[in-house]
Amino acid sequence: MPKRGFVYLVGAGPGRPDLITLRGAELIKIADCIICDKLANPALLAGARPDAEIVNVPKRIGPGSFTQDQVNQVLLAKALEGKTVVRLKGGDPCIFGRCTEEAVLLNEAGVGFEIVPGITAAIAGAEYSGIMLTDRRYSSQVAFITGREAEGKQDTNIDWDVLARFPGTLVFYMGIGRLPVIAEQLLANGRDAATPDLISAHPHITSYAPAVL
Amino acid sequence: MPKRGFVYLVGAGPGRPDLITLRGAELIKIADCIICDKLANPALLAGARPDAEIVNVPKRIGPGSFTQDQVNQVLLAKALEGKTVVRLKGGDPCIFGRCTEEAVLLNEAGVGFEIVPGITAAIAGAEYSGIMLTDRRYSSQVAFITGREAEGKQDTNIDWDVLARFPGTLVFYMGIGRLPVIAEQLLANGRDAATPDLISAHPHITSYAPAVL
Repeated sequence: MPKRGFVYLVGAGPGRPDLITLRGAELIKIADCIICDKLANPALLAGARPDAEIVNVPKRIGPGSFTQDQVNQVLLAKALEGKTVVRLKGGDPCIFGRCTEEAVLLNEAGVGFEIVPGITAAIAGAEYSGIMLTDRRYSSQVAFITGREAEGKQDTNIDWDVLARFPGTLVFYMGIGRLPVIAEQLLANGRDAATPDLISAHPHITSYAPAVL
Repeated sequence: MPKRGFVYLVGAGPGRPDLITLRGAELIKIADCIICDKLANPALLAGARPDAEIVNVPKRIGPGSFTQDQVNQVLLAKALEGKTVVRLKGGDPCIFGRCTEEAVLLNEAGVGFEIVPGITAAIAGAEYSGIMLTDRRYSSQVAFITGREAEGKQDTNIDWDVLARFPGTLVFYMGIGRLPVIAEQLLANGRDAATPDLISAHPHITSYAPAVL
């Protein structure tokens, strides 16, 4: 029976390399192989072993892009070679991170794995721009929603009526390309047009622009 | 003009000491004074300077408990002594962490501060129990709600109808004492009684019990 490796599904955090957890940084140091998202800061790899194998699996538009199936294949292949693998994912692995698919795949193949949480973009984006996602005076709840669902999908499970009436903060991940649809749907379903809002890229730094619905 | 200190509002993470960020751990090392929540793991203080002043400000029922006003007074006093202060808070400082009040207070007093995010309990609790808060197949959104709002408050801004209809994962923080009310309200407003659920204390370890609404 071949030796099976072990996979750590590690959240790289929102960008700043010192916003990874101690556990995540420790695992980068011991990994035989590190499989990296585009969203994970390459500076994190400075802590890797000199002989560690680094595999970049960016998901983006255009050539050199990986589908989730291709990422899965690479991940499984490296684990089945008996390697200690760190799968480094931007933010938190399980908040819109396709972690389930990778975990299910590893589980079915009998490969052990551990999930190491990371600082998710919504939290860092809010804090580094001085906005509180929850505040006893204004908002006793916060919802994270994927902006990608808005991409013309017919069987979407976004309920705009519920979101428009949600009495708290709404955070759309990956929503920038669908901003007009998101704003239109919220307004059409009764969200107050005076609701303050923020658009953030690179949420670990104070690069942001206030937006008007 | 007296020298003013600087305050770092640091998320200690969900409990495991290696789930704090590198940044948070680094700040613990340099602090003159560390003001600690009950929820922050005391093991984190092992990294503090031997001469650092440690102030525990637990909020709980009974004697020895601090109100938020008392915490604010301690925080401001230490900063105005010119100290580098780490205010160590369980989880993330801004997710139901009363961070706003502390930040506003410091700002009004002209004391500089930085917020350092932490792994929030909902994310760690889910991951360490093998539950995905978001999953492309089932849940494109997740909401964090404070369970404390349920404590008989008249002007609650929890809308049970909206929450019952929210098409994704619901996470109630500090909800254990109000579990019957939460379950009753969700069911009365139409949440499917077959919705799977989990009750978690100590979310960084696999100590949990499945619950039935």
